Amino acid sequence: KFGSTTSFKNFTLSVWEFCKEDSNRVTFSLKVGLAVLLVSLLILCRTPYQVFGTNIIWSILTVAIMFEYTVGATFNRGFNRALGSLLAGVLAISIAELALRTGRTAEPIIIGFSIFIVGTVTSFMKLWPSLVPYEYGFRVILFTYCLIVVSGYRMGNPIMTAMDRLYSIAIGAIVAVAVNVLICPIWAGEQLHKELVSHFASLADALEECVGKYLKDDGSEHPEFTNTVMDEFPDEPAYRKCRSKLNSSAKLESLASSAKWEPPHGRFLHIFYPWSEYVKVGAVLRYCTYEVMALHGVLHSEIQAPYNLRIAFQKEIQDAASEAAELVRCLGKDITSMRRTLKTCLLKRVHSSTERLQRALDMHSYLLTSHHEPPDNSSRTHSRLSHALSSTFSNLSNHAADLNKLLEQNSDPPSQPLGHIPHLQEESYHEMMRKQSRRLYSWPSREVDAFEDGGNINSDCIPRMRALESTATLSLATFTSLLIEFVARLDHLVEAVDQLSKMARFEQEAL
Amino acid sequence: KFGSTTSFKNFTLSVWEFCKEDSNRVTFSLKVGLAVLLVSLLILCRTPYQVFGTNIIWSILTVAIMFEYTVGATFNRGFNRALGSLLAGVLAISIAELALRTGRTAEPIIIGFSIFIVGTVTSFMKLWPSLVPYEYGFRVILFTYCLIVVSGYRMGNPIMTAMDRLYSIAIGAIVAVAVNVLICPIWAGEQLHKELVSHFASLADALEECVGKYLKDDGSEHPEFTNTVMDEFPDEPAYRKCRSKLNSSAKLESLASSAKWEPPHGRFLHIFYPWSEYVKVGAVLRYCTYEVMALHGVLHSEIQAPYNLRIAFQKEIQDAASEAAELVRCLGKDITSMRRTLKTCLLKRVHSSTERLQRALDMHSYLLTSHHEPPDNSSRTHSRLSHALSSTFSNLSNHAADLNKLLEQNSDPPSQPLGHIPHLQEESYHEMMRKQSRRLYSWPSREVDAFEDGGNINSDCIPRMRALESTATLSLATFTSLLIEFVARLDHLVEAVDQLSKMARFEQEAL
Repeated sequence: KFGSTTSFKNFTLSVWEFCKEDSNRVTFSLKVGLAVLLVSLLILCRTPYQVFGTNIIWSILTVAIMFEYTVGATFNRGFNRALGSLLAGVLAISIAELALRTGRTAEPIIIGFSIFIVGTVTSFMKLWPSLVPYEYGFRVILFTYCLIVVSGYRMGNPIMTAMDRLYSIAIGAIVAVAVNVLICPIWAGEQLHKELVSHFASLADALEECVGKYLKDDGSEHPEFTNTVMDEFPDEPAYRKCRSKLNSSAKLESLASSAKWEPPHGRFLHIFYPWSEYVKVGAVLRYCTYEVMALHGVLHSEIQAPYNLRIAFQKEIQDAASEAAELVRCLGKDITSMRRTLKTCLLKRVHSSTERLQRALDMHSYLLTSHHEPPDNSSRTHSRLSHALSSTFSNLSNHAADLNKLLEQNSDPPSQPLGHIPHLQEESYHEMMRKQSRRLYSWPSREVDAFEDGGNINSDCIPRMRALESTATLSLATFTSLLIEFVARLDHLVEAVDQLSKMARFEQEAL
Repeated sequence: KFGSTTSFKNFTLSVWEFCKEDSNRVTFSLKVGLAVLLVSLLILCRTPYQVFGTNIIWSILTVAIMFEYTVGATFNRGFNRALGSLLAGVLAISIAELALRTGRTAEPIIIGFSIFIVGTVTSFMKLWPSLVPYEYGFRVILFTYCLIVVSGYRMGNPIMTAMDRLYSIAIGAIVAVAVNVLICPIWAGEQLHKELVSHFASLADALEECVGKYLKDDGSEHPEFTNTVMDEFPDEPAYRKCRSKLNSSAKLESLASSAKWEPPHGRFLHIFYPWSEYVKVGAVLRYCTYEVMALHGVLHSEIQAPYNLRIAFQKEIQDAASEAAELVRCLGKDITSMRRTLKTCLLKRVHSSTERLQRALDMHSYLLTSHHEPPDNSSRTHSRLSHALSSTFSNLSNHAADLNKLLEQNSDPPSQPLGHIPHLQEESYHEMMRKQSRRLYSWPSREVDAFEDGGNINSDCIPRMRALESTATLSLATFTSLLIEFVARLDHLVEAVDQLSKMARFEQEAL
C-alpha cells in the first residue's frame, strides 16, 4: 500500500511539473471543456433546444474536431471545415435535385454512383503534394456530402437537410473560434517566436558543450564507440536537445503555416507579418547545426588527436567557440526582444578570434604532420608533386624529404608499433600515448581483423600505424576546420536574422 | 483557347505521371470510393434501411474518418475509434443513469459538469508526450461522450442511444477494415521496407556526387556562397534528395508504428517482425548522413584547398568514396532482397582503400602545411610545445624551424599577399592561384571589412593571409577526415543491418 501511495505521489508530481513547464497546456484543456459545455448548453437548456432542435448535436462534433491548440490552427481547421462543408453542401444539393427528377428507380443509382466518384476524387486529391495541408478539408467534403445526399434521399428534402447541417456546423465553429480567441488565446505566432529563439539557445549550448568536452576529454574515460553510437549521450544534455530540435524541424513549418492564419496580435502588430522568414532563419540554423553535428562526430570518433595536442590550441579553440556561441545567443536575444542591433562588433570579434585560431594552427602546423621518412618509391612522390604543385615545388619536396630524414634521426623513430613508447621523462605522457595507441588499434573493427588473411595488410603494419597516427593528429585540424566553417556560416545566419528583422520591422536600436 | 488546351494537357500529363509514380495512389482512391459506396448502400437499399434505421448514417462518418492509406494506420485508427467509443459509451451510460436518478433539476447540471470535466481531461491527456499517438482516440472519446449523454438526455434512453451509436460505428469500422485489407491492401510494412532501402540509395548517391564534385571543381565556376546557402543546389539532385530524406525522418517512425499493427503478410511472415529495428537502422543512416552533410559543407565552403592539391589525392579519395558508396548500396540491396550476406570482404576493401588514403595523406602531409618561418615569439612556441609534446619534441621543433627556414629560402616566399603569384612557368597554375586568393579574400565577409577600423587587423595582413592559406590547404585534410569518419560509421551501419537481418530472420546466403 505504501508503494502505491509513493507512485501516486510521483505521478501527481510529474503531472504538476508538466503543467508548470507550460501553463498553456492547462489553459488549453480548460478552454476545450468550456467550449463543449457551451455547445451542450444549447441542447440542455429548454429555450435554445426548442429553437434549434436535435440537429444541434452536429455542433458538438464540430467543436470536438475543430478545436486546436493554437488560434491559427483552429482558424485553419475552421476554414477547411467551412469551405469543405459549403462545397459539399452545394454539390450534394445539385446532385440530389438532379437525382430527384430522374425518378424513383434511377435516384439511388445516381446517388450511389456520385458517392463513389466523390470518395475517389477527394481521396486522390488529398494525396496531391500541394493539397496535402488541406487533407482535413477533403475528409469533411466526403462525409458531409454523403450525409446530406443520403439523409436527403431518405427524408426527401435535401436542401432542408443541408441547411440544418450547415447552420449547426456554423454554430459549433463560431463557439470554438470565440472561445479560442477570446479566452487566453494561445497564438501560433508567439509559439513560433519562442520556438525559434529556443533553437538559437540550444545551438549555442551544444557548441559550447561539444568544444568544452573536446578540450577536457583526455581519452581516459572514453567508452566504446560501438555502445554509444546510437545512445542518448546522457552526459551531453545540450547535444541531445540540439539533435531533437534538428529532428523536429517540421514543427517550425507547421507553426508558421498556422501563424499565417492569425490576425495581428500581441507584439506582432503589422499585417503580413513575415512568418515565412522564421522558417528561413530556421533553415539557416539547421545548416549551422549540421556543423555542430560534425564537430560532435569528431569528438566521439575513435581516431582522436592526442590530448596534449588539443591542449596546445586550447585557448584559441575555446575563444573562437565561446565568441561564436555568444554571437548565436545574442542573435537569439535580439529576436526575443524584437530589437535590431548591429552585429558588426560581435561578428568582428568572432572573426578575429577565428583568425587567431587559424594563425595558431598555421604557426604550429608542423605539429599536425607526423615526422617520418618519405617512402622509397620517390618516383611516385615526384609525379604526384609535379602534378600537384608545379616543378618548382617538386624540387622543394626533395629538400623536404632530406630535411625530414634529418629530423627523423634526431627523434625517436616510432618503429615498433605495439611498443610505441618514446623514452620520455614524463610518466603521464607515456600513459597517454599508450591509451591513445590502444584506441587507434580499435579501428578498423574487430570483424575485419578476424577475417584478415595476413596478406598485404599485416605485412606493412608500420606505415599503417603511422598513417593512423597522422590521421589522428589531423583530426585536430578537422575539428578546427569545422569550427571555422561554423563561423563562416554564422555570416549567413546574421544575414538571415537581419532580413527577418527588416521585414518584421524590429525596433532599430539607436547607434 | 489554345493556351487552355495545352495547360489542360499538361495538367492531365502531370496527373498521369503522379499516378504512374505510385499506382497505390489510384488503388487507395478507388478503395475509399468503394467503402463509402458500400456503407451508403445500407441506407439506399430498402431492406437494410428497415433493419438499421437512420442511425446507420454514423457508419458513413466512421468510414470517412477511419480510412487511412495503409492497413496498419487504418487498424490503428480503428483501434483508437473502437476503444474511444467504448470507453465513452460506458462512461456516458453510467453518468446518464446517475443523473437520471437525481431528478429533473439536477440532471442537466450534472450532465453539463461532466461534459466540462471530460472535455478538460481528454484534452489534457492528449498533450501528454506518451499519449500523443492516441490523440485521435481522445477526440473520439470527447465527442462520442457528448453525443450520447446529450441525446440520451433529450431522448430519455441513454443505453439505447449508446447502443445505436456503437453498432453503427462498428458497421462502419468493419466495412472500412474489410475493404482496406481484402482489396489490394497497401501494407505499411512494405512501404517502410521500400522507404528504408531508398534512404540507402540516396545516401550512396549523395556521397558519390559530393566527392565527384569536390574532385572536379576547379574553382572557376563557383557562384557566391551567399546566394547558394539556402538554395536548392539545382545541379546536385542527389544531395537534395538526401537532405529531404534527412528532414523527413519522422516518416520512418510513423510507418513503423503503423506496421506494428499489421498481421504477418507478404514477405514479412513471422510474428513480431522487428519493425522497430528499421527505425534504428534509419537512425544510424541519419548518423552517416550528417557526415555527408559536413562533406557537402566543405565542398561549398569559401575557403577551399587548391585544385591541384585535391587532384594529388584524387585517386585515393575517389577509391575510398566509391568503395564506401558501394558498401552502402550493397547493404541496401541486401535489405531489398531480404538476404543476409557477409559484408567482411566489402568492408575490408573499404577499410583498405581508406587506409591507402590515410597513408597517402600521411606521406604527403608536408603538402598540407604552409612553409614559412615560425614567428619571433619563439618562447611562446617553446612553452606550447613542451606542454604539448614533451621536451624531446620541443628540441625537434627548433630543428624544424631551422629546416623550415631553409625551405623558405629555396622557395618563393609568398610575402606580398595581394600580388601573391609565384613566378611559375605554368600559366594555368598562376590563374588558379589568383582565383584562389580572390576567393580567400571573400572571407571574412564584406560587412566586417567595411567597418574595419584599420587597427590591429590590417597591420598584420601578411600572417593573416598565410593563415588563410594554411586553412585552405587544411580544408583538404578536413574533407578526407570526414570521409574517413564516414567510413568508420559504416561499421555501425553494417552492424545495425546485421542486427536487423538476424532479428528479421533474413535468408542466410550459403558461404
